[in-house]
Amino acid sequence: MKIGFIGLGRMGTGMAKNLLAAGHTLFLYNRTREKAEALASPAARVVSSPAEAAREADAVFTMLADDHAVAEVTFADGLIEALPRNAIHLSSSTISTALSRRLAEEHGARGRTFVAAPVFGRPEAAAAKKLLVVLAGDPSAIERCRPLADAIGRQTFVAGFEPWQANALKLGGNFMIASMLEAFSEAFALMRRSNIAEQQFLDVMSELFGSPVYKNYGSTIVERRFDPAGFALKLGYKDVRLALEAAAETSTPMPFAGVLRDQLLNALAHGQQDLDWSSIALAAARNAGLSDAKQT
Amino acid sequence: MKIGFIGLGRMGTGMAKNLLAAGHTLFLYNRTREKAEALASPAARVVSSPAEAAREADAVFTMLADDHAVAEVTFADGLIEALPRNAIHLSSSTISTALSRRLAEEHGARGRTFVAAPVFGRPEAAAAKKLLVVLAGDPSAIERCRPLADAIGRQTFVAGFEPWQANALKLGGNFMIASMLEAFSEAFALMRRSNIAEQQFLDVMSELFGSPVYKNYGSTIVERRFDPAGFALKLGYKDVRLALEAAAETSTPMPFAGVLRDQLLNALAHGQQDLDWSSIALAAARNAGLSDAKQT
Amino acid sequence: MKIGFIGLGRMGTGMAKNLLAAGHTLFLYNRTREKAEALASPAARVVSSPAEAAREADAVFTMLADDHAVAEVTFADGLIEALPRNAIHLSSSTISTALSRRLAEEHGARGRTFVAAPVFGRPEAAAAKKLLVVLAGDPSAIERCRPLADAIGRQTFVAGFEPWQANALKLGGNFMIASMLEAFSEAFALMRRSNIAEQQFLDVMSELFGSPVYKNYGSTIVERRFDPAGFALKLGYKDVRLALEAAAETSTPMPFAGVLRDQLLNALAHGQQDLDWSSIALAAARNAGLSDAKQT
Amino acid sequence: MKIGFIGLGRMGTGMAKNLLAAGHTLFLYNRTREKAEALASPAARVVSSPAEAAREADAVFTMLADDHAVAEVTFADGLIEALPRNAIHLSSSTISTALSRRLAEEHGARGRTFVAAPVFGRPEAAAAKKLLVVLAGDPSAIERCRPLADAIGRQTFVAGFEPWQANALKLGGNFMIASMLEAFSEAFALMRRSNIAEQQFLDVMSELFGSPVYKNYGSTIVERRFDPAGFALKLGYKDVRLALEAAAETSTPMPFAGVLRDQLLNALAHGQQDLDWSSIALAAARNAGLSDAKQT
Repeated sequence: MKIGFIGLGRMGTGMAKNLLAAGHTLFLYNRTREKAEALASPAARVVSSPAEAAREADAVFTMLADDHAVAEVTFADGLIEALPRNAIHLSSSTISTALSRRLAEEHGARGRTFVAAPVFGRPEAAAAKKLLVVLAGDPSAIERCRPLADAIGRQTFVAGFEPWQANALKLGGNFMIASMLEAFSEAFALMRRSNIAEQQFLDVMSELFGSPVYKNYGSTIVERRFDPAGFALKLGYKDVRLALEAAAETSTPMPFAGVLRDQLLNALAHGQQDLDWSSIALAAARNAGLSDAKQT
Repeated sequence: MKIGFIGLGRMGTGMAKNLLAAGHTLFLYNRTREKAEALASPAARVVSSPAEAAREADAVFTMLADDHAVAEVTFADGLIEALPRNAIHLSSSTISTALSRRLAEEHGARGRTFVAAPVFGRPEAAAAKKLLVVLAGDPSAIERCRPLADAIGRQTFVAGFEPWQANALKLGGNFMIASMLEAFSEAFALMRRSNIAEQQFLDVMSELFGSPVYKNYGSTIVERRFDPAGFALKLGYKDVRLALEAAAETSTPMPFAGVLRDQLLNALAHGQQDLDWSSIALAAARNAGLSDAKQT
Repeated sequence: MKIGFIGLGRMGTGMAKNLLAAGHTLFLYNRTREKAEALASPAARVVSSPAEAAREADAVFTMLADDHAVAEVTFADGLIEALPRNAIHLSSSTISTALSRRLAEEHGARGRTFVAAPVFGRPEAAAAKKLLVVLAGDPSAIERCRPLADAIGRQTFVAGFEPWQANALKLGGNFMIASMLEAFSEAFALMRRSNIAEQQFLDVMSELFGSPVYKNYGSTIVERRFDPAGFALKLGYKDVRLALEAAAETSTPMPFAGVLRDQLLNALAHGQQDLDWSSIALAAARNAGLSDAKQT
Repeated sequence: MKIGFIGLGRMGTGMAKNLLAAGHTLFLYNRTREKAEALASPAARVVSSPAEAAREADAVFTMLADDHAVAEVTFADGLIEALPRNAIHLSSSTISTALSRRLAEEHGARGRTFVAAPVFGRPEAAAAKKLLVVLAGDPSAIERCRPLADAIGRQTFVAGFEPWQANALKLGGNFMIASMLEAFSEAFALMRRSNIAEQQFLDVMSELFGSPVYKNYGSTIVERRFDPAGFALKLGYKDVRLALEAAAETSTPMPFAGVLRDQLLNALAHGQQDLDWSSIALAAARNAGLSDAKQT
């Protein structure tokens, strides 16, 4: 297939490489052109605008930072007009359910198809084709997208017939990870106030949950490896905010999400926006009168 | 070693069997004598009181329901007086840090030794010698207890020099599991209000976390397998309450624990005390105006 | 002065009458024209559009339901273009700080002046000239507006030099009232579960706080006088949401506001959107397993 | 009547003086004898033990710091044995509902009568006979106590037939005040982050609520008049803890109380135990990255 790919950050680059490896032809666009050119090859042409990436494509991916960037590229930069009839826009960014609904409507009104295709996984997982891909949208469009999803991830899931459902599921998943981080944060604070080594607690939890996610994030906190960020706290805050918006739309009380919001605002008020989001742990530590320093 | 074992419920029975299998001699006591007799053998003598279980022992285990039962057995029923000098009382029950400190003081004042030895794992894990055992206490006593801990579990950890630290670690661990349950509960409510199948969300989370704990508890919730309880909600509430007490003693704010307390009280107010503690999920569902029924 | 007045609901009608009583000339606009005509007189001309209300005015008030209505009237319906240079737009609606900033910028860019003038008080207070008026904006503009504020309220306050500060203060004040409602709700639930009459508790609190706000809202809850609403729960939810947005903009954790959000979503999920916002009390009652019915 | 009075701190001294002024004869006991002697007169005899204060009394008041002190005086120091049959023990301390139930049972078992008589008001109110008194217990005993309650307060309320109900009502009332303090704290933080003067916000709130409690506590916070404490934060924490215990006994979720607990623990972790409990405001300020200093 001919595929436009817009947004070649660390996630997008890994995804685009795997689409190339699967034999597809790509039109690459990135605001900072150098990142696109790093991937250039006969099968991967670098183009100068989102519209150009879409014009001859069977499908176009967007993998961008937030709602604003996706709306800009789609509407202001003309992706939606340039996209051929019956071609598909796959949005892999973590965006709001509200924007997802708007994208579905606007595409539908113009005879284009919108499929939400958010992914779980860090940049390393994107590079290694180990993402989890969640699709939602019209069933026949889903079937057309499935080979693309399979090309970038280790497993593909379908959330429902309406694109925004995939975004809701993605936000729910990030909420699960954030909740694990806050639970760790509070427990670590309790351990420190009890003169128990954080590492000791982590060892037991790693064994108890048997989950690489617990082990990796837990050790990031214990080691205070917050800089450079794997996933910036300001983006984690954005995702919790979007989860709360999805909850508000559906009248779903989510008290844990409310706590997460406050702890992340505490972190932002203390200048942690560019640290890894696991540095939410510093909020619980400060609240307990503990220093931010690594335990020794 | 000669070992007294007091409390032969489902957990205690598994532990006692593994101590026997490791070649120790046991004095078994249980309030309901039948449960002790089920284990009787030449190497496992059933006795009639906690004091009798302790009298000739090098070490005595207690594996009982709560603070009240442990204090009763130790003080009122005379375990502490009957225990030989230099013998060790290992407490594997999930008890308060306050009671643990009191036990350490009272034993110390009489020349006996107290070691906290709480365990992580369900009854099946106890039977299969797969518990995680957390020890805390005097280092030389810990070394004497280590072979016993190794006999009942798959891994042994040391939390510190003071017995109550093992109890604090255990309470922190149960808080981690309870937090996972509540995170699931809120996310499932959001999914249901978004017309997304709970099972679909669970499939993604199982893959994302790669943890049997997520997979098992998640499917218990999705299937509403709350009765019979693997771990009764009233006991889960007790553990959260004890975690909050440990937090209060050390001036550690724990907002997630506060939310857990309220959701568990909500569950208790709706008659769920004897259901599995994963039925905390019904509170989040009700708060969102959803029925308690399984999604279809 | 010649004053445009847009939005003649129950609040706006009382305010407009008091401006008339103070000797000003009014141009009245309301989407449903009948409400404007009820005030018609030689000094109060009914006009057909927001632009017409603004065209000859020295100042124009907007007193509308929400951000959307204020933006619509100001931008889409042409108020901002019709308003004479140096004339003032006073916004008395409870709107977001974000919209307030946008209004200040857009007016400023066109040589008009924007002053935020939110008010505290129910419709009866508006009719009786007993509102509290909070102004914010350019100091010289504030001085020009002060006689108008004094004409509609019993006391006028100045929050700062930037209009959005008055909106932030207003949102903070509504948060204070909502917090009182939730505190009452939880305490009433505790009383009911303790077989203590809600009325008895209210009598003590009325005497303790010596505040008509406590007495009035408390008795609304005790009597379950939620319908018709004095202030609809869906509007109360909107205000808490705006307070949370103002908190997010300034990185201010507000855990009480987070609880309010969840309890109001609980209420919305149970169909209470058109009941009085004091019916938030039903959420706390339900969470404690109590019926919504009045205590007898 | 002949009245024993045990506990002559600032509250007790005011209450005892008003009982004397009403013509009663008193037996005064205080651990630090000097405080009792300051009140000595022919009608007010200083005695050497709680038992002595009770021996010839028709009624005996206890006005002590906490559960521990009340239990000590009643049981260990022999008040309960010394009290004549049919005499009444009035407990005005803020104690747990659990201790209140125990006192009722133990007195009942010995043919004595227990009435809970907690009071609302600061020491100045006690001196000025302006307390609010809440009675609960057997109706005929209540009637015998009513003249005593009327002698020390400006209004007397009856909470129910069981003494602990008065304690539950008192704890609910203190929870209402604490909730007001936290609401103020969060709103002040929002104001400061919005460059709005705390005093300005307070002026509007004082006018809005029309309550001396809001005005007084609000200005204590704005002026940072936390030392010396009117009511120490550690005591405020104790009362919130007791409210949570009463909530737990009755399965009543109270999310605001949970937030209060965490903010007070935050304050305790930062060394504020002896400051006024309105210094809870420093927790919200710190969480928002603000200094503890007075705004200038």
